[in-house]
This record gives sequence, C-alpha cells and structure tokens, in this order.
Amino acid sequence: MYSLRFTAESSANGMAERDFTVAGVPGVLWSPASGAADRAPLILMAHGGGNHKKHPAMSGRAQRLVGCGFHVAVLDAPGHGDRPRTAHDEAEIAELFRARAAGEPEGPVVVRYNAHLAELAVPEYRATLDALQELPEIGTEGPVGFWGINMGTAIGVPLVAVEPRITAAVFGLHWPDALAEQAAQITVPIEYDLQWDDEHIPREAGLALFDAFASKEKTLHVNAGRHKELPRFEADSAVRFFARHLGQGLRPAASR
Amino acid sequence: MYSLRFTAESSANGMAERDFTVAGVPGVLWSPASGAADRAPLILMAHGGGNHKKHPAMSGRAQRLVGCGFHVAVLDAPGHGDRPRTAHDEAEIAELFRARAAGEPEGPVVVRYNAHLAELAVPEYRATLDALQELPEIGTEGPVGFWGINMGTAIGVPLVAVEPRITAAVFGLHWPDALAEQAAQITVPIEYDLQWDDEHIPREAGLALFDAFASKEKTLHVNAGRHKELPRFEADSAVRFFARHLGQGLRPAASR
Repeated sequence: MYSLRFTAESSANGMAERDFTVAGVPGVLWSPASGAADRAPLILMAHGGGNHKKHPAMSGRAQRLVGCGFHVAVLDAPGHGDRPRTAHDEAEIAELFRARAAGEPEGPVVVRYNAHLAELAVPEYRATLDALQELPEIGTEGPVGFWGINMGTAIGVPLVAVEPRITAAVFGLHWPDALAEQAAQITVPIEYDLQWDDEHIPREAGLALFDAFASKEKTLHVNAGRHKELPRFEADSAVRFFARHLGQGLRPAASR
Repeated sequence: MYSLRFTAESSANGMAERDFTVAGVPGVLWSPASGAADRAPLILMAHGGGNHKKHPAMSGRAQRLVGCGFHVAVLDAPGHGDRPRTAHDEAEIAELFRARAAGEPEGPVVVRYNAHLAELAVPEYRATLDALQELPEIGTEGPVGFWGINMGTAIGVPLVAVEPRITAAVFGLHWPDALAEQAAQITVPIEYDLQWDDEHIPREAGLALFDAFASKEKTLHVNAGRHKELPRFEADSAVRFFARHLGQGLRPAASR
C-alpha cells in the first residue's frame, strides 16, 4: 500500500488546504480549518478535462462541502495539472483541437481519450482512498462520496462501479458510449446533471446514461442551456444530496 | 370584480389559516401567524385530482412556504372538495374508474377531464388573484408564484400562459396533449417534476411537455420511481425555487 505524503499546507476562508502525493500522484485535501482533525465523511472529486485539482470549480465546490463539515480530496488527472503529458496525451489533445476547429463533433475524441485517462485514474483514486483512510480524521468507518462532472464523470463511473466504499455520487454531462455498461453496475444513490441544449452531447445520449444507472434512488437535473451553462445552484443541490446521503451537518433549508 | 369573503379563521404551527370564498368558490389562505399582516409574495397552488384545497400535500407545502414568509392560497377545483359534482363530473369519474379497473390507460380520460376542469378553474383563479391583491398584506406590487402537480399542472399551465402577474411556476406529472401549446406561451422560470418510471405518463410524454415551455430558465427534476413516488425533497426544492425567483427570505442552504 502506498502512503500519503503531505507537501504543503495553508488555510483561507475557514478551509485548510493540504497538498499531498500518493505514489507520485499529486492531490489536494480540503478540510474545515476549525476542525481539520475532526473525523468526518470524505468526498472524492475529479476535475473536468483541461482543468486541474485546484481549478475554481473544484475549490468552490470544496468550500461548500467543507462548510458542511466534509473532507474533500481531488487528484490531478493523468496529463493534467502538475502531471506531465505523454506523447499520447499531446496527440489526443491535438486531435480534439483539430476536430473543434473543423466543426466536427468532439464526442468521439473526448469519449475515447477520457476512457483512456479513466483506466489510469481509477487505480490512482483507489490507492489514494486507501491512504486517506489511514488519516485519523477520515478513518475507514465513515461513508465516502464521489462528485465529478464531464471528465470527472468519465473517471467516476468506472471508479464507483468497482469501489464499494463509495456510497453516493454526483455525475453529469457525459456521453453513454464508454460508460453505460459500468453505470449498470452502480446501485448507490446518484444525482445526474444534464444540459437540455448541450451542443456537444445529444439529449438522448445524456438521458441514456442516466437511464443506465441501476440505482434505485436516482435523480436527474436538467437545465435549459448549453454545455458550459450548468447553473451554480446545481452545486448547492449536490451538497444537499451528499448531506442527505452521507449524514453530514447540513439539513435541507426548508426544514430549518 | 368579485370580492373576497373570509368565512373561518384559525392558527396552528405558526401558520394562520383563513377560509374564504370568491364568487362562491371556496379557498384557503395560509399566512405566517406572526406576520399575517406583513406584505409578502403570494404563491397560488392547485391541488391534484380527487383531492381538495386542504389535502395534506397542500397544507404540507404551505407550511414550508409560510415558514419562508410567503402567503399561500388554494381553491377547491370544480367538482372537488366542498364543491358539488355535476352529472358530467360523475360520468367522467365513473369512466376513469372503469378504465382503471379494465387495465386501460388512464391518460385519455384524465387529459380530457382535466382540460375541462381547467377551463372552469382558470377564470376562478384569476378572479381570486384580483380579490387577494385587494388585501393590504398581499397588494398588487409583489410577485406571484404558481405551484401545481398532476391536475394542478393541467390548471396551472393555461393559467400561467394567460396571467402576466405570475412570474415563476412549479409544474409536474402531466401529459403534453392538451398543454404543450399553452406551455409554449410561458416564458417565466419554471421547475418541472417527472417520475422516470411513471406507470401512467410515458417518459417521452413528460419530456415533451418540459420541452414545450418557452422559458429561458427551466429546470427538470427526474426521479426514479412510479407516479405517486415523487420524493418529498422535491417539495423543498420547489420552495427554494420560489425563494430564488420571488426574492423571499430563504437563501440556498449551502451559501449560509
């Protein structure tokens, strides 16, 4: 088993931030500043394509979750953030840019490349979860959640399909092609985000992936708008979803 | 213009309840007990088929909304609650029970009967809104919302289509047949609830009605489960939707 090595530590806005590596893979662990040592459930997140572990979408979600007392961890995906790109990464990215410039659909390239990255990332996330659970403030008893949209879903669906420690997940904005079969192995509660006017992912494709999950409790949130216009209130909804299923502090607003 | 006549008044759980009639149509107005006289936005609700204005689904939603400072009003639909049934009502209800017992689809009967009831109910709701806005605690300045699922949607879609005072609406669980054309006239923000395994309303039919709304801001919430299994947390979501769009007290939980 690989061990976790902390490489930097800071704190801002009530949130402690600890950079770490597990077997050379760089990640970040965010925790409540006032209770970084308090045992609390963990949410694993995975970032979107072209982004990195500390992208504002990640730190913004972390801020919401940490405010409810969760620990939150994100890894740089292979070829992303502080990690080197291979020749294969460069070739796939060049192909994506070529397709985009030519006005061709991005789907085939993104689906194929994300599936490749997920094959590498899934064991990295599992090794990181092993290592994080060695920390006294996380431990092996507490529930674990997963939250990833776009490429985060491409990594998360195969991860959650094989990882019994993850008991609730938020996904969204992906094609079913490489994922539907693994989604059919997932039975934990999920929330799935879909954009009704997505210029990349056809409506029927998004609905097909949602349909594929075997979860008895599953919720789909569709919003009018294009691929990048997922409304901010869906992040609040995801936080409520985790609070509901992982039993952390936050109660639904209307019952308070 | 018809005036509003209060016929009974009580209070429980922080909620003042005033029965009223407008032109002979019985309704109920729920308000914060501590601030029944305070000016606040109004949510009009319409109940489901076979129910009445004080059905627990109505008073439960009202409790949540009143807790956020809203006024809430519901009318008994024609042929429902304290209102007499006509021979036509009796015939349609008998036909619904016959179809149900024979294992035939309920849709054709429900769609037709609800459309008939909506024709009667829409002018009743508009007259009631006129009369409610005469009350100093409601007034003509504040925004108005509408919330109705099932038959409440059959009444609400034609109502919101013609009533410019209503600026946000929550609908759900209906067929598009009689409603899609009117939905296409609606441009205010909407939230729409659909059950993924609805045994009465085919998936494609529900999605088609959501698709028909011309609203730039529209959200669809799909949950796994049958027609009557709409999760309770969707009521909390609707309350947050109204708080967001009608500017009342409640803030999204995660930002507090």
